[in-house]
Amino acid sequence: MTTSNSTKTKYDPNFTQHCIDIIGPKATPRTREVMSALIRHIHDFAREVELTVDEWMMGVDFLNETGHIHFQDPKRNEMHRLSDVIGLESLVDEIAHKHALETDEIPTSSSILGPFWSPNAPWRELGGSIIQDPHNGHVTLMHGRVIDLITKEGIPNAVVDIWQASSNGKYDFQDPENQTDNNLRGKFRTDDKGYYHFYCLKPTSYSLPTDGTAGVLLKALDRHPMRPAHIHLMISADNYKPCTTQIFPRDDPWLETDTVMAVKDDLVVDFKPLEGDKQATLDLEYNVLLAPKGNPSARL
Amino acid sequence: MTTSNSTKTKYDPNFTQHCIDIIGPKATPRTREVMSALIRHIHDFAREVELTVDEWMMGVDFLNETGHIHFQDPKRNEMHRLSDVIGLESLVDEIAHKHALETDEIPTSSSILGPFWSPNAPWRELGGSIIQDPHNGHVTLMHGRVIDLITKEGIPNAVVDIWQASSNGKYDFQDPENQTDNNLRGKFRTDDKGYYHFYCLKPTSYSLPTDGTAGVLLKALDRHPMRPAHIHLMISADNYKPCTTQIFPRDDPWLETDTVMAVKDDLVVDFKPLEGDKQATLDLEYNVLLAPKGNPSARL
Repeated sequence: MTTSNSTKTKYDPNFTQHCIDIIGPKATPRTREVMSALIRHIHDFAREVELTVDEWMMGVDFLNETGHIHFQDPKRNEMHRLSDVIGLESLVDEIAHKHALETDEIPTSSSILGPFWSPNAPWRELGGSIIQDPHNGHVTLMHGRVIDLITKEGIPNAVVDIWQASSNGKYDFQDPENQTDNNLRGKFRTDDKGYYHFYCLKPTSYSLPTDGTAGVLLKALDRHPMRPAHIHLMISADNYKPCTTQIFPRDDPWLETDTVMAVKDDLVVDFKPLEGDKQATLDLEYNVLLAPKGNPSARL
Repeated sequence: MTTSNSTKTKYDPNFTQHCIDIIGPKATPRTREVMSALIRHIHDFAREVELTVDEWMMGVDFLNETGHIHFQDPKRNEMHRLSDVIGLESLVDEIAHKHALETDEIPTSSSILGPFWSPNAPWRELGGSIIQDPHNGHVTLMHGRVIDLITKEGIPNAVVDIWQASSNGKYDFQDPENQTDNNLRGKFRTDDKGYYHFYCLKPTSYSLPTDGTAGVLLKALDRHPMRPAHIHLMISADNYKPCTTQIFPRDDPWLETDTVMAVKDDLVVDFKPLEGDKQATLDLEYNVLLAPKGNPSARL
């Protein structure tokens, strides 16, 4: 905290506690916990920077405008994007994953899939390709093994669900002129030893849309709107905790400054030259560890 | 802070600083200061309560819906109301007033006037009434003196701008069926000794609208939506810092739990019985101290 004592004591020391104390007895314990902390942090923020009336009003207008974008175009969730740009989705994701490892709960991951996951991705055969349409990218043979975190054995019949943008930086949803439905999407099942392999593209970096309020904020912060290239993956198997993740090519220039701060060291992967494959010029090995459901320590 | 060390160290200790460090060199110093503090407090909040993905998504949806209300009905600013309900406007107001007293700046007060101030309130004669239309309230003779904070002398020609809701809890804007334009509004000038007097109503408490997201939040917090009865005042004079305030009758049942937390001890006033006045049954004395512009300490 950089709050000086003088700033802290200058203002009514009972005000924030009063705002928390008037929460009534029928509020659920979790509502009380979350809203008490939110009120405390927002008040501490306002006192720390001595937020002016104009700045507060600017914030109100900014959030109104952000909400408006969603209702002009329901496919576009600018409030979600705004929370990404300040790192909140990435942080909530970290919290959920830590929590999943420590406890026996499965984090609800439907919303951290991002806006481009599809429940309708087709099942494809091992060794098949998710590339349906023309592109300017580099075809990659992606392969690996889905492994039990505890026994280190392969998990047969695990599902590897993959989706990615094309070489123009757009997903099929966003690009009906160039892409057919389910281009660059597919679900694969691992073989009896837990192995999978298929063809995809080396991914391409792209810019967030900058014509909304998130773009206004990025400009005010003198930040770029670029996401590093990435492949989305959702890996699941019966009796295991599912894993939703993104992987990033090590040579991407935006890794350090990903505008939604989603890059973690262990998610950076190497695309290597591949020889002797008529379909692909690059090779990507990616192995996934899945934690079994149930108390992991009980199995150790 | 209730953040335990274990919660603090469990998560990537560099993540929040990284989100701050990527702010670029062209961001203004104030943008950097405000947004750095906002990111730090929002992240601390999320870690402290271990915010879940579902709760984060619920927050995104809630703010989208709040923004939507404003665009369905531009006269209704639900985001403003939401910030009131968590005490933010009242806190920003406290900060602005402390700042105005300590420095030579005049806080921009147009936005803390609330949504019901009107720039078109009519000038009225001293001793006149702001009551134009029928009501069920108690007519009050309000009077007092506008005084120089330093010299304690009356300030001639000061402007007392008053507005209030009628006995049904509605302002003229909201109630065209029962109230004519500028009912319960008026501007008065103090006499050559700084005194003013006019007739108004003892104010009536009212509920915030509860059919929007602010109502959803109030319900979740098990809080009532009531504002204590109040009279709005904006007092100004040449060469003095203006004062925008609200005053509250001491016998109001909602003083302690005002749903927008705007009550301060020195704003609670006594309406006393009045005899011998054909127009009014209550008497309210209210004196206002105005600070001169310029460095006050230089004048002491």
